Amino acid sequence: MATTTKSGEAFDRAQFESVMRRRLFYTPSFEIYGGVSGLYDYGPPGCSLQANVIDLWRKHFVLEEDMLEVDCTMLTPEEVLKTSGHVDKFADWMCKDPKTGEIFRADHLVEEVLESRLKGDKEARGQKVTEEKEDPKKKKKKVKEIKAIKLEDAVVQEYGEILAKIDNYDGPELGQLMVKYDIKNPATGGDLLPPVAFNLMFQTSIGPSSNLPGYLRPETAQGQFLTFQKLLEFNQGQMPFASASIGKSFRNEISPRSGLLRVREFLMAEIEHFVDPAGGKKHPRFDDVKHVKLELLNREVQLSGKTTVESTAIGDAVEKGIVDNETLGYFLARIQLFLLKIGVDATKIRFRQHMANEMAHYAADCWDAELLTSYGWIECVGCADRSAYDLTVHMNKTGAPLLVRERRAEPLRVEEWQVDIDKKKFGPKFKKDAKTVEAAIEALTQDVREKLSLDLNNEGKITVDVAGVGEGKVELGKELVNIEKRTRVENTREYTPNVIEPSFGIGRILYSLMEQNYWVRPGDEEGARGVLSFPPVVAPTKVLLVPLSSHADFGPLVSRLSLKLRKMGISSRVDDSSASIGKRYSRNDELGTPLGITVDFESVQNQTFTLRDRDSTRQVRASEEEIFAAVKKLCDGDETWADVEKRLPKFEGQQLES
Amino acid sequence: MATTTKSGEAFDRAQFESVMRRRLFYTPSFEIYGGVSGLYDYGPPGCSLQANVIDLWRKHFVLEEDMLEVDCTMLTPEEVLKTSGHVDKFADWMCKDPKTGEIFRADHLVEEVLESRLKGDKEARGQKVTEEKEDPKKKKKKVKEIKAIKLEDAVVQEYGEILAKIDNYDGPELGQLMVKYDIKNPATGGDLLPPVAFNLMFQTSIGPSSNLPGYLRPETAQGQFLTFQKLLEFNQGQMPFASASIGKSFRNEISPRSGLLRVREFLMAEIEHFVDPAGGKKHPRFDDVKHVKLELLNREVQLSGKTTVESTAIGDAVEKGIVDNETLGYFLARIQLFLLKIGVDATKIRFRQHMANEMAHYAADCWDAELLTSYGWIECVGCADRSAYDLTVHMNKTGAPLLVRERRAEPLRVEEWQVDIDKKKFGPKFKKDAKTVEAAIEALTQDVREKLSLDLNNEGKITVDVAGVGEGKVELGKELVNIEKRTRVENTREYTPNVIEPSFGIGRILYSLMEQNYWVRPGDEEGARGVLSFPPVVAPTKVLLVPLSSHADFGPLVSRLSLKLRKMGISSRVDDSSASIGKRYSRNDELGTPLGITVDFESVQNQTFTLRDRDSTRQVRASEEEIFAAVKKLCDGDETWADVEKRLPKFEGQQLES
Repeated sequence: MATTTKSGEAFDRAQFESVMRRRLFYTPSFEIYGGVSGLYDYGPPGCSLQANVIDLWRKHFVLEEDMLEVDCTMLTPEEVLKTSGHVDKFADWMCKDPKTGEIFRADHLVEEVLESRLKGDKEARGQKVTEEKEDPKKKKKKVKEIKAIKLEDAVVQEYGEILAKIDNYDGPELGQLMVKYDIKNPATGGDLLPPVAFNLMFQTSIGPSSNLPGYLRPETAQGQFLTFQKLLEFNQGQMPFASASIGKSFRNEISPRSGLLRVREFLMAEIEHFVDPAGGKKHPRFDDVKHVKLELLNREVQLSGKTTVESTAIGDAVEKGIVDNETLGYFLARIQLFLLKIGVDATKIRFRQHMANEMAHYAADCWDAELLTSYGWIECVGCADRSAYDLTVHMNKTGAPLLVRERRAEPLRVEEWQVDIDKKKFGPKFKKDAKTVEAAIEALTQDVREKLSLDLNNEGKITVDVAGVGEGKVELGKELVNIEKRTRVENTREYTPNVIEPSFGIGRILYSLMEQNYWVRPGDEEGARGVLSFPPVVAPTKVLLVPLSSHADFGPLVSRLSLKLRKMGISSRVDDSSASIGKRYSRNDELGTPLGITVDFESVQNQTFTLRDRDSTRQVRASEEEIFAAVKKLCDGDETWADVEKRLPKFEGQQLES
Repeated sequence: MATTTKSGEAFDRAQFESVMRRRLFYTPSFEIYGGVSGLYDYGPPGCSLQANVIDLWRKHFVLEEDMLEVDCTMLTPEEVLKTSGHVDKFADWMCKDPKTGEIFRADHLVEEVLESRLKGDKEARGQKVTEEKEDPKKKKKKVKEIKAIKLEDAVVQEYGEILAKIDNYDGPELGQLMVKYDIKNPATGGDLLPPVAFNLMFQTSIGPSSNLPGYLRPETAQGQFLTFQKLLEFNQGQMPFASASIGKSFRNEISPRSGLLRVREFLMAEIEHFVDPAGGKKHPRFDDVKHVKLELLNREVQLSGKTTVESTAIGDAVEKGIVDNETLGYFLARIQLFLLKIGVDATKIRFRQHMANEMAHYAADCWDAELLTSYGWIECVGCADRSAYDLTVHMNKTGAPLLVRERRAEPLRVEEWQVDIDKKKFGPKFKKDAKTVEAAIEALTQDVREKLSLDLNNEGKITVDVAGVGEGKVELGKELVNIEKRTRVENTREYTPNVIEPSFGIGRILYSLMEQNYWVRPGDEEGARGVLSFPPVVAPTKVLLVPLSSHADFGPLVSRLSLKLRKMGISSRVDDSSASIGKRYSRNDELGTPLGITVDFESVQNQTFTLRDRDSTRQVRASEEEIFAAVKKLCDGDETWADVEKRLPKFEGQQLES
């Protein structure tokens, strides 16, 4: 997809990627062994950028909101993921070419083949074929060649309808489509086997005896749910509260492409905010953010086939019911504030609501923060309402009380029909079936109990259905049971919290951040050079220290400045190579270093230094104290370069940029 | 093992572990599913402690020494670990009881059975049986019952000799010992199958077609080695340099015990320092640390059966050859400085050299930093000289140039015998064998070449051994080869760097840190309470804010202080519960919070506050400005509590600790 850079020219992805690799922001893993698709390493600047973004995330969410951070294991026993639904449902459909051994993701294949036929049809009809937008969800093109073959009008319409709901088909349905529309291996024309489910989790076995199958977690969330009870206790029983976790998760993609956007091992930062479902999921700090405007693309707009977003204050969006509740709205706003803080382009963020059929199996509602890149709009943060799904299934499975018990302000009085059993007589009468009969009685609804109480009064006995005992019916007389209407007083309320889950794909955010902040400075004598305009707070290195030359007087001064910056907690690097000052600056612009301090002869004489701004390449000159104060304020985000230029005298030393 | 706490009383592990779990420093993973041995989660304080230790590690090593940090994937294709030797050698020997399905680690079983027999022998002889020291390498006792049976003197001696070298036996040898000494399942007396190798890596398969077997990495090192060439280039070709990586690694222990000390998934921080093997592996900053005294336990002392350590300045140790070289010595000293900075007890650190037979397959020399805990001396940091092993094997396998090329200051002139081949005639004469014959000639040593040159002069032909061609010998005349002594000039030097690897087991360090800093404050009205005396720099929370009561005047003041601390980057927590001040302080002492600020009525009137020290429970009172300055200095490690007490007036408000 054609996007433009900060400086307005067309973004050139090939050039950008070459810079990223050359400067070691990220590189394919195991490259000298031929690489493994979907696995990437971060080099020094990428690593530092990642650490800074994580640090800011921790401050913005965990510290700011007193969240309870946990670090759970990635290795997860199968039973847990069976309960959560991942063993059965976390899968894609794939089909295999039995001759070549190639494997295709079924939905992608059907989509691509039908699209290519539609394109061929247009060509045959002499219509203009528009450049196809690249979609990160799709693989490298499997259909290499578009054949100009005209289709019948009815077929064109059918294809259109199928493509519109391509995400809705399950495996057997995709298989039927493949048969009906004669979809084969595009390269060889060979037949494909019917789609089979491929679970996307990496499987392994824990311990020596292979009797404990396990997986690498597909999300950090499950570990947080399992710890809920301990966390609630740690929080002294107070609700609502949130847990948070930063760590790697894994997804065994069938055939990953699109660089950092679709990988098999990725860093996530996930929050699980536990909230009482009663009372509309209010959030105590919602007022702080209700004025924040978001670009919202809701479900209705998408259903009508449009992608027009509407800029809406989150307060209004919640009031109008576009966003379901305050807690969800609070986090959408906080997510946007975080993204802006790390340097995401404000004009390239939108929030898209999931369609009913694209939500994960556990989600009740979901909005994605999407960032615009050359791959299109990329889901970078999901914000799902998982309702009580996870806590409920784990509680049902294990019996652990994953719920909140709170004292009611006013005791609850419940009028209800109660059945008393005379246990002394019950056992001897029903023997081994006694428990089954008791359970059947316990399970009787209030309506049935009321009716039975009449029977008992009128006939002195009742008949209860008990599957598996006798003829399936059991007769009980007054000597065995008694049914009465009584008032039960509940002093404690029990509920399973709902979960609002903001889930950050850190790798995708980093990629978008790098792409959105990359631009090319028009050539000077060194040629055109890339610039990464990261805000100081996330920039891998904050300050470049540049001695004018290798003159012996500069070394001690540079060491002193370097030490001082380290004491201030500001990362710096010295470039004392023999390259020109201009060249040294420009190769650090490419690493995103926002500030540069030059040490020259005047510095030696009077302890003044020049400070350079990466984006404008403009400089100021001032005393050591003033320069360091400016560096600190710029790095803390308390001042902008414009502020600094207002205070400190401009410097235009010709020698510095030559 | 009996250890004493900071305050001098005997350390009570059961009590300590109960505090750790109750306060969520760490807890068994998947506990509501029954748990999985060897997997632990960190809760909020453990997580925060871990993040602070990692942050300090990054500052102490990566930033301080300009290391190149990388973040490589955990998923690793089999081929890489085949080359590194892990697929073949990273294994323990296990044997199975075919009846019960139980699995034993063979060396541990032999060791334990023989030890228990020796104990039984002592009992039978009426000798005193000393309390056995617990060893974290050992599993929970398999031998439940010691039988008082006297052994023959010769047998006692044999057992002793076997136990002394128990780490030296391979699987078949352990199997022979088991047969010879009739070692069976201690619980049932059942026969065991012979030991088989069990690889300790978790296996999985990458991608859908199961054709790419992979493992979870057993160390972060391999990813760093594979990136060597790119890192060298990033470092503008300059040597020496170090890469560093922080991340999880995995080890599928046969049957893990000992809590956090032997786990299946663990955080490592590893440095790979690449150094030119020529010139004695000097280190440019060695002088900075040469005065640092370490407690060294070297190989010779251990061989003599002793464990007496000698306090030695690292400069002397390198000079005397106890520690092999400056670079290894530099890192040992830096490791100790790091451990002291995070709060490890200076009297509970030693450095132990590995015995030749206990080193990993890749190591040329290795020293462990061991920390004393109730489990004995625990290896927490390994510092190995991996020589050129890894870079060499990966280069040989892939052909990638994992080496350094540097221009020689003086060109190297080498006199050598060179063999010229007339290729035009060679091909037609030998046909398909031509390459084989050429290779055999290339491989001739200088000595052989010299002798052959005489043959060629004297007889006009030479005979060369070429396996697989003709009769295994080939005759070559002057028309085919020429042998001459010439001078070759080398302008470039090529070498494979050696690697010094400081490798930190973060989980073990955290455990030791927690154990060594735990003590119990004698009871007051609240009863005895645990205290964790972490230094402020690693403490999970730095400051506890305590309003005297729920009086409405205190709230805004507490919020203001809290915001101010956050701005300063100092983590704080408010405890405004209704518990007494004393109780609120003591439950935060248990979390290791070093400082407390009380907000009382005087604070409201005149903006003065009391500051409390966790360890002494003493307090000072001063103005807001003075209190915050003290907090900052204490947290930065620039002042101690004693310094603060000298400056600021002591406070003894009776109400505060009641």
